[in-house]
Amino acid sequence: MTRASDDPARPRTHVHSVRVFYGDTDQMGVAYYANYFRWFEMARNEYLRAAGCTYLELESDGVRLPVIEANCTYRSPARYDDLLAISAWIAELSGVRVRFEYRVHRAGQEAILAKGHTVHACLDQEGSPRRFPESLLNRLSE
Amino acid sequence: MTRASDDPARPRTHVHSVRVFYGDTDQMGVAYYANYFRWFEMARNEYLRAAGCTYLELESDGVRLPVIEANCTYRSPARYDDLLAISAWIAELSGVRVRFEYRVHRAGQEAILAKGHTVHACLDQEGSPRRFPESLLNRLSE
Amino acid sequence: MTRASDDPARPRTHVHSVRVFYGDTDQMGVAYYANYFRWFEMARNEYLRAAGCTYLELESDGVRLPVIEANCTYRSPARYDDLLAISAWIAELSGVRVRFEYRVHRAGQEAILAKGHTVHACLDQEGSPRRFPESLLNRLSE
Amino acid sequence: MTRASDDPARPRTHVHSVRVFYGDTDQMGVAYYANYFRWFEMARNEYLRAAGCTYLELESDGVRLPVIEANCTYRSPARYDDLLAISAWIAELSGVRVRFEYRVHRAGQEAILAKGHTVHACLDQEGSPRRFPESLLNRLSE
Repeated sequence: MTRASDDPARPRTHVHSVRVFYGDTDQMGVAYYANYFRWFEMARNEYLRAAGCTYLELESDGVRLPVIEANCTYRSPARYDDLLAISAWIAELSGVRVRFEYRVHRAGQEAILAKGHTVHACLDQEGSPRRFPESLLNRLSE
Repeated sequence: MTRASDDPARPRTHVHSVRVFYGDTDQMGVAYYANYFRWFEMARNEYLRAAGCTYLELESDGVRLPVIEANCTYRSPARYDDLLAISAWIAELSGVRVRFEYRVHRAGQEAILAKGHTVHACLDQEGSPRRFPESLLNRLSE
Repeated sequence: MTRASDDPARPRTHVHSVRVFYGDTDQMGVAYYANYFRWFEMARNEYLRAAGCTYLELESDGVRLPVIEANCTYRSPARYDDLLAISAWIAELSGVRVRFEYRVHRAGQEAILAKGHTVHACLDQEGSPRRFPESLLNRLSE
Repeated sequence: MTRASDDPARPRTHVHSVRVFYGDTDQMGVAYYANYFRWFEMARNEYLRAAGCTYLELESDGVRLPVIEANCTYRSPARYDDLLAISAWIAELSGVRVRFEYRVHRAGQEAILAKGHTVHACLDQEGSPRRFPESLLNRLSE
């Protein structure tokens, strides 16, 4: 589900649903902290698909977006079998970098369980910095 | 391997070795970004063991240290079969919180591949905030 | 999606969809073999939900279903961004054990990428063998 | 640690140590079943290194050994902070396939926690079947 935003200050947001499965939990009975970064990846993957340019297509166009920074703040634990809504949007976009923001909620609930961001560099397939293709920049900044 | 530090400004550091295995890599041919947080956990686990108080013992003493913030900055990718050295130390310790810092190197090399930190709250087994036990504080601040 | 079967020889099957994400792949460019077992868990979790008894409810009724055997045969690799359909059904059900079968396809395609099974013992919360509750047996053998 | 075997019926065995960390556990308080396959990979990786041909070298020689079957039988759970000994050896070796066997113990204990095997096809880098290089066959069947 992608929400176009009327408010120019509120960027387009994609919400991705994930079920917390047993393999995501640890013996504290909550979702293990590293798994939130897996969910962030799923959410930004689906964000790109909704924006009309899958990461798979980016790769075949010679674009790589490796993570150069990742952050998560955990407020309240996600638990086994929770249905989570992971919101993702682009908070900053330059010619060579993009920053995604994420929020984790239980589906249908207001409270934020966790919030985070990832910053990605734009590289070519040899791993050298390159600028985003114009067409991609246009799509992402729409 | 734990280094006692003569320099009071350099805290005791524990270095944990991990081999990057196939399941850690992704199709970009490098270690997947979320796995660094698994390595951070291994390194702080071994830090605590070296400090004389395993996390298992903390748990049986009614102490939980859930992650409330996690951060990693990625400079250069770790690759399949790399032998990594993950350094961990305590950068801040109050009565109710602890902050671990991490550095990821290839074993025997100076270059930093990644750096990060985690912040942990001290909770009791019901999940309410509590102060660190005195004995633990003493061990960790030695 | 759960299909009731008219054919008594074909048990009720639940099909669960998963997207192969980057963290599922390895540097061979395909989904890492251990991840199929994560997908199997997701599929049987959703099978139970569709059958009207979530695993969460089973746990609160004092039932544990730990895996005592797991098997997977890999025919053709799943790749990044593939949308997979994981079919799950109960192949054997006794008073103390249950065996799930799984098939992995790309969504909408006939070819089997992988097939597997898991066998689960029925334990109580202390870890001792127990019989399935009658109500559960009835639901699962419907 | 690799044991050469005097008994021709007992093949050379490599024992790999792993610590069960928090991210390996699930809310049942035991190691999640899919993680045993990660440990199997670590053990066979180190088996190959001890045999003088790392998987990395095999890859650069144009050999791929994807898993075509994986199996694990779970007898007794591994728990957080357990130090495990994963034994690995080659049970069958033909010109085009290899089968590894695995046993999981707690370090220094006789009881088997889990046993399993993986079967691997020998492929070239395009994914077509090929025979093992002669030199590799010799090393592995020593």
